Amino acid sequence: MQVIKDLQEMQNLALAWRARRERIVLVPTMGYFHQGHLSLMEYGRTRGDHLVVSIFVNPTQFSPQEDLDRYPRDFKRDCDLARGVGVDLIFAPEAGQMYPAGYQTFVTVTDVTKGLCGASRPTHFQGVATVVLKLFNLVQPDVAVFGEKDYQQLITVQRLATDLNLPVEIVGRPLVRESDGLALSSRNVYLNPEERRSALKLSQALLKARELAAKGERSRQNLFAILEPIFSNDLQMALDYLVLVDEQTLEEITEIKGRARLALAAWVGRTRLIDNILLEVA
Amino acid sequence: MQVIKDLQEMQNLALAWRARRERIVLVPTMGYFHQGHLSLMEYGRTRGDHLVVSIFVNPTQFSPQEDLDRYPRDFKRDCDLARGVGVDLIFAPEAGQMYPAGYQTFVTVTDVTKGLCGASRPTHFQGVATVVLKLFNLVQPDVAVFGEKDYQQLITVQRLATDLNLPVEIVGRPLVRESDGLALSSRNVYLNPEERRSALKLSQALLKARELAAKGERSRQNLFAILEPIFSNDLQMALDYLVLVDEQTLEEITEIKGRARLALAAWVGRTRLIDNILLEVA
Repeated sequence: MQVIKDLQEMQNLALAWRARRERIVLVPTMGYFHQGHLSLMEYGRTRGDHLVVSIFVNPTQFSPQEDLDRYPRDFKRDCDLARGVGVDLIFAPEAGQMYPAGYQTFVTVTDVTKGLCGASRPTHFQGVATVVLKLFNLVQPDVAVFGEKDYQQLITVQRLATDLNLPVEIVGRPLVRESDGLALSSRNVYLNPEERRSALKLSQALLKARELAAKGERSRQNLFAILEPIFSNDLQMALDYLVLVDEQTLEEITEIKGRARLALAAWVGRTRLIDNILLEVA
Repeated sequence: MQVIKDLQEMQNLALAWRARRERIVLVPTMGYFHQGHLSLMEYGRTRGDHLVVSIFVNPTQFSPQEDLDRYPRDFKRDCDLARGVGVDLIFAPEAGQMYPAGYQTFVTVTDVTKGLCGASRPTHFQGVATVVLKLFNLVQPDVAVFGEKDYQQLITVQRLATDLNLPVEIVGRPLVRESDGLALSSRNVYLNPEERRSALKLSQALLKARELAAKGERSRQNLFAILEPIFSNDLQMALDYLVLVDEQTLEEITEIKGRARLALAAWVGRTRLIDNILLEVA
């Protein structure tokens, strides 16, 4: 497995691959891999000739009060795990080369980034859209794979690719849960045992909603009447949002017509967690 | 010479060319060709295997009170002129396909778009940056050619390409003047004979400045003391800006160190004209 840090070296290699008509698959990550990342890589392995995983803790998608500095990192372990699932190349650029002095170009996707995490993280998705576009230009993928864990990010990147006519197929893959339901996240490492127990309520509420929808419950009002009490009276936890939205536009809906996405974010202690689930009414 | 209007057809052809390692040159235009456009095409002809000229009067770079509706168009004449200089393909997309319902992605280049035309046209360069990026993704050029007539646009696109790591060489080519000095512009067709005479003062001032700089004049203050009276007391004309700027950052300077760019915009009757010139102190 190759490791490249230099931007020009990465792009030259990618262009050489393309000139030989070899298909490139990119899995963009911030590192500190868990089974969710590895499942994206295993899927990516099946989609092309070269499987590239980028590791870049992108500073422009963190606001000053967020956890950029303490975001967990373990490059050596990440390389070992990536090698184990057949990754060909780790692209790990430096922030100083990605955003050199004089850097001044930003990409904004407007409507789908307004609600959900965009409401409490107003510059986050501009940072995501910009870095993803840069990574696409550097790695030249035919296919890029994202986890549904960051569902709003997936929709934002799909919108970006469609609107800017990028010749890249954007694939969303299911999130991976612990056996007790907790969605895998690099940030789970921040949780102490008591917080970890509280955090379970997030997936419990989503799984409950899926069960209710499967039995025919379509009404937002009825669902939320059952879900909201799950989060109340927990001193460990503060719900940021709980929304029922259209799968593509992320606009809030009051009734499920066929399919919808139920998404939430919550502070558990000092840690902000997100989770979401597909609801399908038969 | 081929004409393509459909976006997917254009991109499929461009990707097929790239897969055969054939070099693509793009000259993006808004049509209504004059010798300035043709000189970009003649240069472009020498730089690759496929010379693509896009014709698209991009609505997002016009503000509501500007001249989108009356902007001059003559597609048949443009095709004849392009054929005459060896263009291989005219790409002429429709606005409805470039910006379909739900479109919501925009590219912003911040610092270099603040002054000059950006000050009086605050959304113009976002429209330019966004459409240029879309055209690059659709046409997949190795080289893109822009005129120095729109000098701030050229710098904006160069910044965009650098910042977003686009594998495209951006080339700026000299503007072309009429024999009396007026910079060629599709908008010159708006001028009546009296306005046309007033408009000559723009290039006269720039050419005068070039002469003064060549003789050793470095001071903005001294230069402007000579130039500004050229524009005063002309009822046909209202100067929008006259600035002496760094060639790359477009920041205003008070003294020319080697090279600088002198740029202006003015309303002549209802028509807004721009012009600029390189100043070199020996």
